[in-house]
Order: sequence, then C-alpha cells, then structure tokens
Amino acid sequence: MKISIILASGKLESYYIDAIQEYNKRLSSYCKIKLFQCKNVKEAEKKIPKNSYVIQISTSNTLISSEFLASKLNSFAVSGVSNIAIVFNFPCSFVDEIISISSLKMCDGLLLTIIYEQIYRAFRIINNQAYHK
Amino acid sequence: MKISIILASGKLESYYIDAIQEYNKRLSSYCKIKLFQCKNVKEAEKKIPKNSYVIQISTSNTLISSEFLASKLNSFAVSGVSNIAIVFNFPCSFVDEIISISSLKMCDGLLLTIIYEQIYRAFRIINNQAYHK
Repeated sequence: MKISIILASGKLESYYIDAIQEYNKRLSSYCKIKLFQCKNVKEAEKKIPKNSYVIQISTSNTLISSEFLASKLNSFAVSGVSNIAIVFNFPCSFVDEIISISSLKMCDGLLLTIIYEQIYRAFRIINNQAYHK
Repeated sequence: MKISIILASGKLESYYIDAIQEYNKRLSSYCKIKLFQCKNVKEAEKKIPKNSYVIQISTSNTLISSEFLASKLNSFAVSGVSNIAIVFNFPCSFVDEIISISSLKMCDGLLLTIIYEQIYRAFRIINNQAYHK
C-alpha cells in the first residue's frame, strides 16, 4: 500500500518534522508513505497519484475514531486499493471521502503529526500489535 | 494565571518534549504554565494546587473548539480563577469539568502537545493576535 500525504504550502516546525520522521521509520514495515510539501494548490493536485483513493482532512465533518481508520485501511488492503492520497490544508477538486480528526483548529505540523501517529496506530490495530514498537 | 498540567506516568518522546518547550516559551507572555510528570496517581493528585479549577482531559465527552477554550480561559481571568489544573491519563477523584479534545486514541506526548498548542492558540485568540509569534 502506498500512502501519499499532500500538503499545499505551510512551514513545519522542526519538532514536528522529527516526529513525522520517527513515524515514517516505524511505518516502513507496513506501507510506503511519502510526504509532498508543495508550493501551491496547483502543484499539490499534480502530486496526487493516478488511481488514488483521495481522502481530504477537514475539521467540519463527523469525527472518526482510531478503530474506524484501522478498519478503513484494512478494507482498502482487502479490496485491492493500493494508492491512497491524503490531502489537507487545500481545497482539492477531486475527493473520494472527507474525514475529520479533530474539531480544533491546529497548525499544519501538529495536524500532520496526528495523521502519521494515527496511521501508525491503525496498522498496529490491524496487525493485533501493541501500540509501541 | 497559573496553569498546572499534571501527568501520571508516561514516557514522552523527545520531539514532543521539544514541541512542549517551544509552546512553554511562547506562553510565558500570557501565563505561568508548569508540567508535572508524576510516577503514579497518588503523586499526581498531590501536585494539584489547592483552590485549583480542575479540568480532566477525556476522549469520551463532547468535543470542544479552540474558541470554546479561549472563552473558557477568558472567563477564568474575568472571574478571578487564578489556578487551573489540567489532568489527564489518570482518573482524578476531584474534577470540576471534563473536556474532550479528540475522539482519537493518542499517545501522551501527542495529546500533551495538542493541549499546549491549544492553550497558546487560546491566548492568541483572547488577545486578538494572529496565531504565529
């Protein structure tokens, strides 16, 4: 499974970059995950791989649980969806699903860290593994 | 205003400690904020300052917004509540209010980072300041 996380603009603080790198390392056993930091919306939309299932992160829809994300990723694996694109902080014109992870406004780095932590947590849940390495 | 954030056990990853230290620095203009990492619940409960308004962080109650937290902190300032204790990851026996910041399960370091980021964001909202320094 390939997961592309696509961000239009937004400077990330160094501690969030460190956190993302750590989850990136932990996730290497489960999937290929790549972060694309783009300059603008046009560039960001181009980074969405063809045939991807596109998930937009929003703060205004129904909030998901960690278990919901795990069952979602599991259903992708079962049904053969191999490219997932997660887009946030820009209005993408072709989206398959919108999910909310918090009702709070947050800076991009923190939101991104939560997404990485939750994807890692989801793979641990799918594989019946305890949270920590 | 003094804010005590009280944590029973839980190892924090270095990048979350870095994030917390940064928000701690930014918050120094607005309040006195202190983190207490305790060994167990008994020790943690002792760290709650007397006459504090005790807020427990939960994942099962109604979720708050950034604006709600700002108006909450503002109302404390107006009504003369000068000690606030925020407790999480342990069942505290004397709590004034329970708030939820996410429906997701998260590691302590990440949850703590969100709390610090949101307190900083709340003070920026209260003071009509843009989010960044």
